[in-house]
Amino acid sequence: HEVHRNKLINSAESCVDEALLGLVRASAGLSLLKGHRVVLRSDLENLRGKVALLSGGGSGHEPAHAGYIGAGMLSAAVAGGVFASPPPGSVLAAILSLHNAGASGVLLIVKNYTGDRLNFGLAAEQARNQGVAVDMVIVAEDCAFDQPSKAGRRGLCGTVFIHKLAGALAEEGCSLDQIVSKVTEILKGIGTLGVSLSPCSVPGCLPSFDLPPGDMEVGLYGSVSVDLLPQVASADEVVKTMIDHMTNPSSQSHLPLKSGDSVVVCVNNLGALSCLEMAVVTRSAIICLESRGVVVARMMSGLFMTSLEMAGVSLTLMRADKETLRLIDAKTTAPAWPNLSNVCLSGRSYITEPQTTIKRPQDEKHSEGPLSPVMHKALEKICSALLEKQEELNSLDRASGDGDCGNTHAQAARAIQEWLQGHVVPGCPRQLLSVVAGLVQEKMGGSSGALYSLFLTAAASHVTEGQSNAAAWATAMNAGTEAMKKYGGAAPGDRTMLDALCPAVDELIKLATAPSGGDMAVLQSAVKKAASGAEATRDLKARAGRASYISPNLVSLPDPGAVAVATILKAILEVLEGRK
Amino acid sequence: HEVHRNKLINSAESCVDEALLGLVRASAGLSLLKGHRVVLRSDLENLRGKVALLSGGGSGHEPAHAGYIGAGMLSAAVAGGVFASPPPGSVLAAILSLHNAGASGVLLIVKNYTGDRLNFGLAAEQARNQGVAVDMVIVAEDCAFDQPSKAGRRGLCGTVFIHKLAGALAEEGCSLDQIVSKVTEILKGIGTLGVSLSPCSVPGCLPSFDLPPGDMEVGLYGSVSVDLLPQVASADEVVKTMIDHMTNPSSQSHLPLKSGDSVVVCVNNLGALSCLEMAVVTRSAIICLESRGVVVARMMSGLFMTSLEMAGVSLTLMRADKETLRLIDAKTTAPAWPNLSNVCLSGRSYITEPQTTIKRPQDEKHSEGPLSPVMHKALEKICSALLEKQEELNSLDRASGDGDCGNTHAQAARAIQEWLQGHVVPGCPRQLLSVVAGLVQEKMGGSSGALYSLFLTAAASHVTEGQSNAAAWATAMNAGTEAMKKYGGAAPGDRTMLDALCPAVDELIKLATAPSGGDMAVLQSAVKKAASGAEATRDLKARAGRASYISPNLVSLPDPGAVAVATILKAILEVLEGRK
Repeated sequence: HEVHRNKLINSAESCVDEALLGLVRASAGLSLLKGHRVVLRSDLENLRGKVALLSGGGSGHEPAHAGYIGAGMLSAAVAGGVFASPPPGSVLAAILSLHNAGASGVLLIVKNYTGDRLNFGLAAEQARNQGVAVDMVIVAEDCAFDQPSKAGRRGLCGTVFIHKLAGALAEEGCSLDQIVSKVTEILKGIGTLGVSLSPCSVPGCLPSFDLPPGDMEVGLYGSVSVDLLPQVASADEVVKTMIDHMTNPSSQSHLPLKSGDSVVVCVNNLGALSCLEMAVVTRSAIICLESRGVVVARMMSGLFMTSLEMAGVSLTLMRADKETLRLIDAKTTAPAWPNLSNVCLSGRSYITEPQTTIKRPQDEKHSEGPLSPVMHKALEKICSALLEKQEELNSLDRASGDGDCGNTHAQAARAIQEWLQGHVVPGCPRQLLSVVAGLVQEKMGGSSGALYSLFLTAAASHVTEGQSNAAAWATAMNAGTEAMKKYGGAAPGDRTMLDALCPAVDELIKLATAPSGGDMAVLQSAVKKAASGAEATRDLKARAGRASYISPNLVSLPDPGAVAVATILKAILEVLEGRK
Repeated sequence: HEVHRNKLINSAESCVDEALLGLVRASAGLSLLKGHRVVLRSDLENLRGKVALLSGGGSGHEPAHAGYIGAGMLSAAVAGGVFASPPPGSVLAAILSLHNAGASGVLLIVKNYTGDRLNFGLAAEQARNQGVAVDMVIVAEDCAFDQPSKAGRRGLCGTVFIHKLAGALAEEGCSLDQIVSKVTEILKGIGTLGVSLSPCSVPGCLPSFDLPPGDMEVGLYGSVSVDLLPQVASADEVVKTMIDHMTNPSSQSHLPLKSGDSVVVCVNNLGALSCLEMAVVTRSAIICLESRGVVVARMMSGLFMTSLEMAGVSLTLMRADKETLRLIDAKTTAPAWPNLSNVCLSGRSYITEPQTTIKRPQDEKHSEGPLSPVMHKALEKICSALLEKQEELNSLDRASGDGDCGNTHAQAARAIQEWLQGHVVPGCPRQLLSVVAGLVQEKMGGSSGALYSLFLTAAASHVTEGQSNAAAWATAMNAGTEAMKKYGGAAPGDRTMLDALCPAVDELIKLATAPSGGDMAVLQSAVKKAASGAEATRDLKARAGRASYISPNLVSLPDPGAVAVATILKAILEVLEGRK
């Protein structure tokens, strides 16, 4: 069974008070009531004449309840120890603070657990004896049990909806009676069911229950298992099982839900489910509900009512009419309320068609020109040279990398050869470089593919059919090299392709100012520099790319990437020399 | 070592696409670009003439990056596979969608990983060749390494700040150049460091690294360990170690931070830390920073840039001037941006002094009256009767509960006896009932203490010195019983105290209409009903309270709570009969 990780706290004894302090310090709208585990709105003066809302309960369910304090939601929250009801004295202190601030009445929103009912109830009676207008609503929306015990259904994440709806009503100035009556009606349309994949453990204690790795338990908190799903149930299956059970009329605690009903949904992370999983479950829930004709009006997905670090999720459904949606959409400053949009989710279009289809350059139609034959020859020569070097490059790469550098370059070479068989070489160098960039990006793959493609793409715009003299090519080569450096993050001396490319380009730059007829000398010199640059990488420590992970003393051979670049440049030179 | 739990997904192959769909379906402001893992603002028309922002990277870091799409933040995000860079073709498709929507330019915000740099870079160059105004900022704010490798510092949660700041600038209509220059300046003042308590696992794969249970690793993602903290480091120690390292000038990747600087802080849950732990760490961070004279201007605490279900936290600090805070505070509709307040956290007052100190009724000064002697006697008699029954009640309770029912009642009795020694019995019954309610609440504890206290508190207001006839007492007893039923959630027949109390109160009600001199007969009958009610619980199945968890056939004795109630009523009757 699972070994539980340590907790990132200071001590089991201090964690509840420190967590409350952390929340209050982080939220300018919150304040701590001295001497109690009570969090209040820091702008109590804004409660004057309005109904104040108080909730609370055991800790370990953060951000509930203090995270829901703010204009338009709760006025205060009382916290107990982890999973323990707060003492009535603190509940009373909270009620009196709200009363003293001038609230016209105080509504207690209490989850249906015996301890909370008794302790909030006791404080309510005491406050009433002191002349405070107090009322209480009990949230009991758990759908786990076909036949709930006498204690009734538990209060779960649906409580957060009540915080929001009652909060919006109070903000609008509704009376205590009006709020109680509206909220009582709304409560009939709320249901929650949870599923857990792992237990949680109270600080200082062992995990709360035992769940064999791989099992899931539907019903929440592990206290009772409605149904044990198979070992590897999919998210879709789990969600369908949950919604089936929640809405099954043969269960006494079901939520009546029919086709055409609108719902607000809360997919609540019980603590440790990844956001990736949460998003998958959110999709499952929307699809499952829509398949029954239910309209998903709003969706909240995140951490709302947790159980420490339990890996699991609960699903809350609330039937919602226009008025309920208006209250859900109302503004609140509560820090744990999410940034929701006020648009109905079902029925909206959520796919954007691309306005332009992106054509791969290698699929475009091109026309030949005067430069086509020499560029055709150069490409053929590059390909054959790289294929000849395949084993040599692989062997060099085995000393410092995957051993596949030759294969990668051979893949690119073969892709180019294949393309040459079915296409004419465009007369415009820009078009040709784009084609090769496209082929290399798609067929070569990996970092090398991206780097060559970057070089070619950045170079392309500098050489066109009308501008293809030696100077233009020099500029293009330089632009390509700069792009490689910029995006690849390497520099000469790092034992990469750049150690051959950069010295060559430093020579090629001279083409811009070379005397007439001096081009070939510059080219020859550049190719020589590339070869010697590649050779010199023997003595370099790898500082970028895959080879940087290998201890430097293992490498005493030249870098295969640099050798490949030198090979390519030499092939081009040979073709140009042959043309002369 | 830890056995990893199953994931709540449908398949490793489909989870990235399903998670994107879940996010888009749940947020009306988002849309999917057909054929790509690209999420776009659904209101692309609002980009016309403005700079559009594109980010992205590997999946598994949700809600990054698509959760940050909205007015005032990103315009689009591209997702790769889990922890894998997205293909350049999808990046290009996203850029062109934004360009086609009329954006004046497109800024790519890229985390500093080789794959992302190359793939976003390649798409940027391709888009530029098609006439799109594109620029890129690289976020590289990791403070883990004293000497960062050639690849540079990694881009972590600080990226979210850049999304927000660049988004606010773009929304205001700043040009591409202006945004790049401002953001580049701000990046110098951002640093991040993480700590993990558990690894995570890519769907379909084993956990990414091995961390012995109990160990913590500072540095993030487990790829390199800056420092291995002791087994049981406290949250305060961990946070101090992190901030020390992040701001240590001898590290090349440190964040310069001095007393008087203002910062925006992000405490980022890497995935599976509980919200309780997160709040504790948030407190540690604020306290540690303030102890160095740093002003904590804003605090974000939650899930911002996760690593699947890794249990851990990263800390991002950003030096912030007024202008930066203005941009952080600007409105955004992005679903993953939190509900922050725009008030400086350091220096604000966050403790509310209670306006009234709540005095315990048992500490108040009371004056005697004509009823004091008989009430004194009744209390004494109740206490001695309960103490006599201590073992009998314990024994009854052993059959169905903790076996401590006698002890609990004896505690209450001794607390009352002790109080009687130091105080006069007030002549006002209301005051006396409040005193006993206070004593019982504090000294009896548990559900019984709360229930008796509720009874007494609800009863108290109905009997005052001026209104203490038999009818008033009947009303008070009835009010107390109703409160017990209401908040306790039990009813007669559930095998609780109510099975003795309710039949007695049904008789006592008759006091209101009893003929003169008939009071004692009613009382006698009520006490008989209580006794027979308690006796009849032998045949009842427990449906509330602790006894409801025990199988019914184990219990064939009366309920101890009901027996205690009958005992108390009998004691009162005996005193009243003695007075006659």
